Amino acid sequence: PPQPPPPAFFFLAEDGIRDSSSSRGLGDGYKRQVSYAGSNLAPDDAVGISFWIISVAMVAATAFFFLESLRVTGKFRTSLVVGGLICLVAGVHYFYMREVWASTGTSPTVFRYVDWIVTVPLQMVEFYLILAAVTAVSMGVFWRLLIGTVVMVVAGYMGEAGFINTTIGFVVGMAGWAYILYEIFSGEASKSAANAKPSVQSAFNTMKWIVTIGWAIYPLGYFLGYLAGGTDEATLNIVYNVADFINKIGFCLAIWAAATTEADA
Amino acid sequence: PPQPPPPAFFFLAEDGIRDSSSSRGLGDGYKRQVSYAGSNLAPDDAVGISFWIISVAMVAATAFFFLESLRVTGKFRTSLVVGGLICLVAGVHYFYMREVWASTGTSPTVFRYVDWIVTVPLQMVEFYLILAAVTAVSMGVFWRLLIGTVVMVVAGYMGEAGFINTTIGFVVGMAGWAYILYEIFSGEASKSAANAKPSVQSAFNTMKWIVTIGWAIYPLGYFLGYLAGGTDEATLNIVYNVADFINKIGFCLAIWAAATTEADA
Amino acid sequence: PPQPPPPAFFFLAEDGIRDSSSSRGLGDGYKRQVSYAGSNLAPDDAVGISFWIISVAMVAATAFFFLESLRVTGKFRTSLVVGGLICLVAGVHYFYMREVWASTGTSPTVFRYVDWIVTVPLQMVEFYLILAAVTAVSMGVFWRLLIGTVVMVVAGYMGEAGFINTTIGFVVGMAGWAYILYEIFSGEASKSAANAKPSVQSAFNTMKWIVTIGWAIYPLGYFLGYLAGGTDEATLNIVYNVADFINKIGFCLAIWAAATTEADA
Amino acid sequence: PPQPPPPAFFFLAEDGIRDSSSSRGLGDGYKRQVSYAGSNLAPDDAVGISFWIISVAMVAATAFFFLESLRVTGKFRTSLVVGGLICLVAGVHYFYMREVWASTGTSPTVFRYVDWIVTVPLQMVEFYLILAAVTAVSMGVFWRLLIGTVVMVVAGYMGEAGFINTTIGFVVGMAGWAYILYEIFSGEASKSAANAKPSVQSAFNTMKWIVTIGWAIYPLGYFLGYLAGGTDEATLNIVYNVADFINKIGFCLAIWAAATTEADA
Amino acid sequence: PPQPPPPAFFFLAEDGIRDSSSSRGLGDGYKRQVSYAGSNLAPDDAVGISFWIISVAMVAATAFFFLESLRVTGKFRTSLVVGGLICLVAGVHYFYMREVWASTGTSPTVFRYVDWIVTVPLQMVEFYLILAAVTAVSMGVFWRLLIGTVVMVVAGYMGEAGFINTTIGFVVGMAGWAYILYEIFSGEASKSAANAKPSVQSAFNTMKWIVTIGWAIYPLGYFLGYLAGGTDEATLNIVYNVADFINKIGFCLAIWAAATTEADA
Repeated sequence: PPQPPPPAFFFLAEDGIRDSSSSRGLGDGYKRQVSYAGSNLAPDDAVGISFWIISVAMVAATAFFFLESLRVTGKFRTSLVVGGLICLVAGVHYFYMREVWASTGTSPTVFRYVDWIVTVPLQMVEFYLILAAVTAVSMGVFWRLLIGTVVMVVAGYMGEAGFINTTIGFVVGMAGWAYILYEIFSGEASKSAANAKPSVQSAFNTMKWIVTIGWAIYPLGYFLGYLAGGTDEATLNIVYNVADFINKIGFCLAIWAAATTEADA
Repeated sequence: PPQPPPPAFFFLAEDGIRDSSSSRGLGDGYKRQVSYAGSNLAPDDAVGISFWIISVAMVAATAFFFLESLRVTGKFRTSLVVGGLICLVAGVHYFYMREVWASTGTSPTVFRYVDWIVTVPLQMVEFYLILAAVTAVSMGVFWRLLIGTVVMVVAGYMGEAGFINTTIGFVVGMAGWAYILYEIFSGEASKSAANAKPSVQSAFNTMKWIVTIGWAIYPLGYFLGYLAGGTDEATLNIVYNVADFINKIGFCLAIWAAATTEADA
Repeated sequence: PPQPPPPAFFFLAEDGIRDSSSSRGLGDGYKRQVSYAGSNLAPDDAVGISFWIISVAMVAATAFFFLESLRVTGKFRTSLVVGGLICLVAGVHYFYMREVWASTGTSPTVFRYVDWIVTVPLQMVEFYLILAAVTAVSMGVFWRLLIGTVVMVVAGYMGEAGFINTTIGFVVGMAGWAYILYEIFSGEASKSAANAKPSVQSAFNTMKWIVTIGWAIYPLGYFLGYLAGGTDEATLNIVYNVADFINKIGFCLAIWAAATTEADA
Repeated sequence: PPQPPPPAFFFLAEDGIRDSSSSRGLGDGYKRQVSYAGSNLAPDDAVGISFWIISVAMVAATAFFFLESLRVTGKFRTSLVVGGLICLVAGVHYFYMREVWASTGTSPTVFRYVDWIVTVPLQMVEFYLILAAVTAVSMGVFWRLLIGTVVMVVAGYMGEAGFINTTIGFVVGMAGWAYILYEIFSGEASKSAANAKPSVQSAFNTMKWIVTIGWAIYPLGYFLGYLAGGTDEATLNIVYNVADFINKIGFCLAIWAAATTEADA
Repeated sequence: PPQPPPPAFFFLAEDGIRDSSSSRGLGDGYKRQVSYAGSNLAPDDAVGISFWIISVAMVAATAFFFLESLRVTGKFRTSLVVGGLICLVAGVHYFYMREVWASTGTSPTVFRYVDWIVTVPLQMVEFYLILAAVTAVSMGVFWRLLIGTVVMVVAGYMGEAGFINTTIGFVVGMAGWAYILYEIFSGEASKSAANAKPSVQSAFNTMKWIVTIGWAIYPLGYFLGYLAGGTDEATLNIVYNVADFINKIGFCLAIWAAATTEADA
């Protein structure tokens, strides 16, 4: 892993600034710049620390799912590889998000959407893959879940970015989510799960409730931020970070538990 | 993944500029520079976002095809490894293209050609590999498809770069494409496919139509940009990005479906 | 591995500074900056050298555990993969910590906590995994050890960061540690270990004593630094670095010994 | 994949330069600097494009040979691993060479030699490895081919660098090459190849002719550049790049064809 | 692989410096800085070239031993994995050392010691591992060889860094080396080797003589540099680089030969 370059450091012979810590006469803006460059996280920067923990946890989770995929066979392996992809993509974006937060102190909203537009459909695909590994399940399940999530994320993004009316974006996004919930609670996916092995049923249940409870945080954040008069950015980012930790790593661990239970049996 | 270095930031003791966000007296050019350096994508920069999504998707697709190649055997494995190479090479170039777009706002045309000259012949090789995995197919198919694509891409590039007349470049490039279409619809490749297993036939069909419909976007862009009086760069880049997403990742997923269907059987 | 960029070097035509080694008229602060930028570690910088050794050792240990995981099967493989994750996460943070120490000369305390909050619970999980590989062990062991370590690290961090009273943080953290020690010396984990194969019993014992003796260094450092009037930062960092070397790499080597003994048998 | 840092960009409050594209009053030298920093390759920079294509192709070839090595067994695997090493080492150097060409416009001659001193002996080792995989072949073949190539490359380098007389360097280097050709056309290596399986004989033949015809380009470039009054740097670099493409990737593909033919049989 | 950033390049509107090659009025120091930044190695910089070759060779050797480890089983695999670790750690340090030499022109002595303190004990462990793969060998051999090397390297470092008297450091270090030689020529390790298979005996012999003859270069360098009135830094670094090439890559190739001979048998 390459070290980040040292803080760029400048001087004129006639000025007195020779050390990044003891410079005199500089505004706070400059000093903040230097301290971020040195990467020394402040102990009370809870948001920065939460970004840091989740970005590293995503790296570890990616390595975990990829390596563990090698000890299962057939379609279970595909489930674990896709689990690793979800954490890989989220990890890449969390490194960028961490950087945006550190250097600007503003919410990296666009990066969250770029992340979601890739990872959330992949999570839906996981419902199909884990069922396909143990039972016959139609491709219709795959496409309906995929399209439901794309509608959900794209509508949310277009509402946030101002391409469409904020409320319309919210309503359409919620409709996409509602459709997914229908599919996994009462639709064909749900029926296929009922015929699966206990380990897969257990994973399906955990995944189902994460999509229900865990994902509720995202429309809530959207509602509070855009429709209910704004919210505190620091709190919102911590909540999103914790939610992503559970909704991605926890979600994939449920799949891992089912896949390795079958492999070890 | 190393963090990009912080924006280089300079000052003289006597000037008042100490913070990248609150500087006074600077033109927009400088501010754009700084905002890109901080990597905070604007919510309404649809082209930038499409570059971002596809570059990350290519990384994920590369990991997917490489890891999944390990669960199939023999020549099917080579098909998946080459699928991973296509996404790897495209991914590398998309990172550079994203950077060119972000820092200059102009089309990264040369990088697109450098990408195509490597990935498009590899895609043609995939037709041969997927057939060779299940049936006897002559090396002539390999060489004719390879040469057809090289003619297509090199002629297009030479026309764009001004080494040859733009119209001649277009016509020769189209001839290369037409030859490929002949080979996969009516030539020896087509005949070999008719004898293949259903899973491979299905993949061959999907790949064939991607090369027909999906690839049509490239000569169209060339025609609009060089022969029909110019086009909107932002729209063109979004269309190219979406096309590459389907033409590369979708193309390789068809191969993956055939290879894993055989492996799981 | 990319080279770090050369030291950023600036001049005005009228000043006499043209070489990073022969500049005149600069304070020590600037010269230290330049020498770190050139990455030439001073021979008597024992703290810097200890950071360097452990960061490289963590990289090597990560590669070792990941590659060796491929030669064992089933749950033993998961144990080694998680061992690799511990070293991976620690390695990433040690590169950052090394950089903070090199560029500021201050303790990278926050990075230590970010590291611990990820790696210490993973180490506790290892007690569960190594037992689960050879015997039936309840999930209660898993959750109790996990929660014990999270309490220990979070309380310590909140005490250090000033979110709660320093003494309260210390006491709660110690209680978490005490609970872990109870679980592995007399609780259910201990009882499960008594039924395990000799190689696993031996690993469990080594791990148990590392958690008892080796981990004692962390509350000691906390006590000396916050409750007993401060301590020498240089000494403290060397001690922490050596402790982490044993507590992480040594800990995982005990697991490796058990896993490969079974695989080679 | 980290983005390259943005172009370093500097200003004084009193100068008018605020944008990398619209600066006034700067010489061409500065502007070239900035355009390279933005990495936007010019469409008519054929040399730069050839460096770009081959550097990316080497990355892809490295991944290809390493991944394909996993589907063959025994000594064939070693042949493919060494093939991957040749492309890995060449790829690393091509990235540096591309950078030298882009930033200075001069031939990266020293990097070519550093590359050759590692990769050319490895290519000779391949003759031994591919024979050893299917037949008994003496270690003498290994050592004679290795020493022949080291003599060839070191003499060429010493002549170019001026450590010895240019003509003497040329003559000694040619003698090393002649010796290799003798060994593979009429010597013990040739005789061992005559007893090998058809797939290996075919690979041996392709490799033999690449060493004869393909390698002729290097002494020719040396002769033209140093003994016949200089040559055009741009042309020379394109020719070297194309030659390296065939002499390395084509050479290793011949080995791959033999190894996988045996594995799939 | 990211490109190194372009040379940082600065100007004031009123000075005439706009191009890194045609600047006027700058001292050699600055020009050297710029030329290194452009990474264009001088043809007659034999030390720089030797650093370059060995750093790339270590990368290739690491990939080789890791990939080849996958085709052997059991303890032989551990031997090859550890061989890869030795080259990995050395490679990382050689990249730093190359950078130190390039940017300062001084010996990177501290980095050599940081490298040795990790890699030299690992090499001693290899004696134990290769014996343990084929015969019963006591853990005492492991610990005695490990401690002998740690004594050797730490004493040498403390003497060089001035923590202890230079002559005492030399004498204690030599004693550590003498003890290792005793163990492998006449001690228990030697006796265990006498019972091993021929391929392992052959590897053990090569490794033994590398430790005897090849390692002699290090105390010689220490003696010449500190006790005999100094030495030429350029020559010393070339000799160290060549010695490390043989003592690490050659050493591990001997292990590889034994391990694969058994695997292919």
